[in-house]
Amino acid sequence: MDNEVKLHGFWPSPFVYRVIWALKLKGIEYDYIEEDLANKSELLLRYNPVYKKVPVLVHAGKPISESLVILEYIEEVWPHSPLLPKDPYERSVARFWINFATDKGRSAVRSLFWGGGDGKKEAAEQMFDFLKIIEEQALGDKKFFGGNSINMVDLIFAWFACWIQPMEQLVGIKVLEPSRLPSLHAWVKNFKEEPIIKENLPDPERLLAYYTRLTSNLVSKPT
Amino acid sequence: MDNEVKLHGFWPSPFVYRVIWALKLKGIEYDYIEEDLANKSELLLRYNPVYKKVPVLVHAGKPISESLVILEYIEEVWPHSPLLPKDPYERSVARFWINFATDKGRSAVRSLFWGGGDGKKEAAEQMFDFLKIIEEQALGDKKFFGGNSINMVDLIFAWFACWIQPMEQLVGIKVLEPSRLPSLHAWVKNFKEEPIIKENLPDPERLLAYYTRLTSNLVSKPT
Repeated sequence: MDNEVKLHGFWPSPFVYRVIWALKLKGIEYDYIEEDLANKSELLLRYNPVYKKVPVLVHAGKPISESLVILEYIEEVWPHSPLLPKDPYERSVARFWINFATDKGRSAVRSLFWGGGDGKKEAAEQMFDFLKIIEEQALGDKKFFGGNSINMVDLIFAWFACWIQPMEQLVGIKVLEPSRLPSLHAWVKNFKEEPIIKENLPDPERLLAYYTRLTSNLVSKPT
Repeated sequence: MDNEVKLHGFWPSPFVYRVIWALKLKGIEYDYIEEDLANKSELLLRYNPVYKKVPVLVHAGKPISESLVILEYIEEVWPHSPLLPKDPYERSVARFWINFATDKGRSAVRSLFWGGGDGKKEAAEQMFDFLKIIEEQALGDKKFFGGNSINMVDLIFAWFACWIQPMEQLVGIKVLEPSRLPSLHAWVKNFKEEPIIKENLPDPERLLAYYTRLTSNLVSKPT
């Protein structure tokens, strides 16, 4: 029990995958507990009483919630194969983009899922503007946001790498066109080809089926 | 120029004050540049092209934006008088509450400012629920969120300590009742009485006048 690492997750969640990838990249052994979000375990409710959400990382019996908080924790406890630059200024730049993705990315994704008709087109343009800023100002001509290797910024933006394809299929709009976003398009390919990532990805068909079910359920509810 | 510290701010902004307090608590000398947000300086636009917002901290010629990112930077570059616990687990707990305040606090404040009539009452209850979680789960019976001294969580929640009074006057609803939120009420008093904080606070009357002007301008605009 002393140094045991456990992760409570849910397979379609990009927030859970951030943590899985961080643990795998650092070679940390852990037990994975799949949660049924329709019937959350007592343990999950006890570990994360405020949000009642996955991911929750449990290390030596102590629970840590919220994917960004978990990533910072992992980086501090297991500093090898670093996920943030050493230099404080470079770290602040990485954290700026992590903040930006969290702040702006969420609303862009929500609008894309929820906007109907013309709303969807507007949302796709909003998403494109968001991705364009990332392409030009954060990624540039680097292979990864972290340079030659994956860092925390890559793990945060990875949502787009792995979830954008089923999302585009679902809403019927292509956002990540190679002609409009060439660097990001190349980055998605590079990211998915990294061995650790490639071995730890949800199946795109299964994701599409899951999100199709989810959004049709949500759409039928009054908002 | 080498190690010069400059802060671009705007006097009514609680996000700017977070940075002012962190610098003062650590005894870091800096130059303060007041920005006119109606007519932002070339320098501000160059330093923060993504958000075009204050605060921006400039250290040795390099700009850092976003208050949370700036606080982490200050903590890493000037680790004396720490603003985060040393223990990684305790740090993760502090970061969890910082995250929570950022995520939930903003929407609670927005609803309070923007909800009209019954909306305001609902928003006040939403704000109360938010503060109750903080009181019971984050503050408990401690003097400060950081225990006996102010830490980063205090600086984030300080918004409520110093801005709640003019905000309550503005919307005409009392949220921070001592009978309902006794520990937070005591914390506000303790926080404002700390010498460094007391010497660096905006004038409440001036804040009220500013927010009254701001919201009446905003309210007259179509949303």
